[in-house]
Amino acid sequence: MQFERKLQLATDLYQLSMANVYFNEGKQDQEAVFDLFIRKNPFNGGYTVAAGLEQVIEYVKNLKFTDEDIKQLRENHPEFSEDFLDYLRDFRFTGDLYALPEGTIFFPQEPIIRVRAPLIEAQLIETTLLSIINHQTLIATKASRIVDETGSDTTMEFGLRRAHGSEAGYFGARAAIIGGFDGTSNVETEDMLSRPSMGTMAHSFVQSFDSEKEAFETFCRYNPDNAVLLVDTYDTLGQGIPTAVEVFKKMRKDGVITGTYGIRIDSGDLAYLTREARRILDDNGLTDAVICASSDLDEYLIKDLKIQGAKIDSWGIGTKLITAYDSPALGGVYKMSQIDGEPKLKVSNDPGKITNPGFKRLVRIYGNNNKALADLMLLEGEEIDTSKPLKIFHPLYPWKKRTLVDYNVKDLLVPVFKDGECVYDSPEVSQMSELLKSEKESIWPEYRRMTNPEEFHVDLSQSLYDLKQDLLSNISHEDPKDPHAD
Amino acid sequence: MQFERKLQLATDLYQLSMANVYFNEGKQDQEAVFDLFIRKNPFNGGYTVAAGLEQVIEYVKNLKFTDEDIKQLRENHPEFSEDFLDYLRDFRFTGDLYALPEGTIFFPQEPIIRVRAPLIEAQLIETTLLSIINHQTLIATKASRIVDETGSDTTMEFGLRRAHGSEAGYFGARAAIIGGFDGTSNVETEDMLSRPSMGTMAHSFVQSFDSEKEAFETFCRYNPDNAVLLVDTYDTLGQGIPTAVEVFKKMRKDGVITGTYGIRIDSGDLAYLTREARRILDDNGLTDAVICASSDLDEYLIKDLKIQGAKIDSWGIGTKLITAYDSPALGGVYKMSQIDGEPKLKVSNDPGKITNPGFKRLVRIYGNNNKALADLMLLEGEEIDTSKPLKIFHPLYPWKKRTLVDYNVKDLLVPVFKDGECVYDSPEVSQMSELLKSEKESIWPEYRRMTNPEEFHVDLSQSLYDLKQDLLSNISHEDPKDPHAD
Repeated sequence: MQFERKLQLATDLYQLSMANVYFNEGKQDQEAVFDLFIRKNPFNGGYTVAAGLEQVIEYVKNLKFTDEDIKQLRENHPEFSEDFLDYLRDFRFTGDLYALPEGTIFFPQEPIIRVRAPLIEAQLIETTLLSIINHQTLIATKASRIVDETGSDTTMEFGLRRAHGSEAGYFGARAAIIGGFDGTSNVETEDMLSRPSMGTMAHSFVQSFDSEKEAFETFCRYNPDNAVLLVDTYDTLGQGIPTAVEVFKKMRKDGVITGTYGIRIDSGDLAYLTREARRILDDNGLTDAVICASSDLDEYLIKDLKIQGAKIDSWGIGTKLITAYDSPALGGVYKMSQIDGEPKLKVSNDPGKITNPGFKRLVRIYGNNNKALADLMLLEGEEIDTSKPLKIFHPLYPWKKRTLVDYNVKDLLVPVFKDGECVYDSPEVSQMSELLKSEKESIWPEYRRMTNPEEFHVDLSQSLYDLKQDLLSNISHEDPKDPHAD
Repeated sequence: MQFERKLQLATDLYQLSMANVYFNEGKQDQEAVFDLFIRKNPFNGGYTVAAGLEQVIEYVKNLKFTDEDIKQLRENHPEFSEDFLDYLRDFRFTGDLYALPEGTIFFPQEPIIRVRAPLIEAQLIETTLLSIINHQTLIATKASRIVDETGSDTTMEFGLRRAHGSEAGYFGARAAIIGGFDGTSNVETEDMLSRPSMGTMAHSFVQSFDSEKEAFETFCRYNPDNAVLLVDTYDTLGQGIPTAVEVFKKMRKDGVITGTYGIRIDSGDLAYLTREARRILDDNGLTDAVICASSDLDEYLIKDLKIQGAKIDSWGIGTKLITAYDSPALGGVYKMSQIDGEPKLKVSNDPGKITNPGFKRLVRIYGNNNKALADLMLLEGEEIDTSKPLKIFHPLYPWKKRTLVDYNVKDLLVPVFKDGECVYDSPEVSQMSELLKSEKESIWPEYRRMTNPEEFHVDLSQSLYDLKQDLLSNISHEDPKDPHAD
């Protein structure tokens, strides 16, 4: 079962309003180029992790409008011409779409997706592309930041109940795995992620038995390979942990427990309680018992808990991950950069918000240690002769220059649709998280620092820079003399 | 089209792990009572707006497991017995469910949903209930807070592109309407919300024409009843507004514009720019032109803009609403309060987190001016004799007492499922927002203040209070002597 949805209409009305004009004015087939990009990394971080492409592909492949949709639009929008509605009835995407593979690390201003398509098609897919990419990229990045702190510990996504509905939980769990999480409690994801879901027990389980001991013993008997007991229903140190220890000793002696076993603590001072728990478990010879912690965890608290000597093997992360709590929206935008072969930009009082014009390539430049030196945006067709030194400069502060020698370059955007045909096979989600791991190897840790990271350079080629300056000089834009006078 | 989903599996594994134990231990039919409630109002606010019940009903009505689901569970979870999997194959919800109608104002600790069902059923529905209610209640509350500030201005939900996926956008838009918004840009919602979606144009529309003037004129011709022009693509005051004025004057003279017309400003200092825009429009006789503003708006900025004399008729609210940006998760929980007729509670070091036991009624007490005086939780079966004075007291600070006379009481929880049969017809969404309006009439504004509101009293009856104290005294819970010693 699922809620009845019409993903083809999951868009803003203005996309259809503009499409109606484009169609009736004969503008629909003008070749347009749009870039989907972010203006800043989320979480005040230094990098962002691409995710959501597989769902974009599924959406674009299947995008068509039903008779029922046409009827709805006709009834609600008398401004739409019958010819336009006829056009929608036969709609399919016929353009090109390039994208960063999921798991790629990228930076502000860089195209995550680049669309070249008839204007009307490129416009109509905007909103859904953004809602998919903004969501999954945000969660994958949050997950990656958490994994940066948990290191080799086990990480489990536990947030479904706090997600923005069950679809956000479903694709949020997917993004968490791309970002490096080991598993999720979300049962619905098992097929998609090719891995069993994970979990322990709830307080209500303990409450439903006459005693904590009975609850623990019963749980162990039914979960011999994953006997992780929640010990904080009544009194963590005074009763929960001692009872768990007693049960573990008996159940191991009796051969009931045959696999992973341990405790979960979901409240209280996790630094103190897990240190105590570890000591008690070890003192009782239960050195292989795992300690799982949950309770409003995020990368900041995890780092602090580790500094304070918390003994945690396995982290269950819910709310703060699945809602990207401290930065719950990725500001991805989708901006026209060219139409009918004419490069375009959008100006803004904020120079960082001026878009980059033209049909662009994006390459990453690596030094001979395989570490990334910088990214470079070029105009399509521009080539880099890697046998020669490469001069790059900061696009906002052009006096910040570097000359690179002994480097190689890699194109980051891969073809996904060509003339409307999908030419890309999405890898398994586990391969996406492998890609992210190798990406992290190539990015100096300074750029991935949790707070106040160094800014990775994303430069423009001289030709692209010149084009941008040229377009800017042709636009009349004057700031108000005194914007605060009435 | 829609993403393929299996809502019946949109749950945490531990629900199924516990169900497996309950079933195999013969505990599945123990009668359990669970309450879904929040512990604090979101956004540091004074109230919360119930939303999401219609989707809960749809979920519970249609909850069953397919052969494919059983196969998935068998493969991934050898710990599940075949008997249990057989049970799941025939699963349906047979219990009772009471809930607050959508649009109801409620407060922390109060049951939003109360379930009385066989333990296994009550447990299995937890996660999906929470993910639906937590999401929609959060967004409805945020919308309501925004409408508290916009007053009689038009409010439009514009956030789909920043939602946590398209389902979050879809149901988020629904919640925004319940919270008092006039419309949404989300086309998919038109049938659900029985209203046409709303919108203007994007910057790319202006960019796709040779001139802003051509773009504006063309748009007006195709949208004579909703000719709202985006004026900030190049230079808002220097070009956008003057061009719009020129186009409006011509198009109105020529009879092209026949309905609403005006401008939208999406960047810059909205206080200054809209004051200037209003002056220019009025000076040109365009006093009925509307000014629509968008750009990272929320209730705080709206209040400040109004204080600074911004001239805005219509507010387009995106990111901050659809993600509930400043408080993006509602901490709704679902706790067992009774099993097999035995009231239960969960203790915590934080007294505010101790749950309220038993099978409870929730009533609102109104004075003779129809203003709500307090809410009261009672044990089911307890009656209130409104001909007598009613003594109520604060559950954490019992010395805070009040004696009420000349009052009446209303039960807030309504029956939704009885013995598994749905006995509730969800009203239209517009009726839910009407209910919220009347709720606001009955709640003193002091409780709805944007910042630092007065706390609405949610009291316990003497019997419920005594029961809670009695259960607490029977639980052994001792705080560590010195929780910071190693």
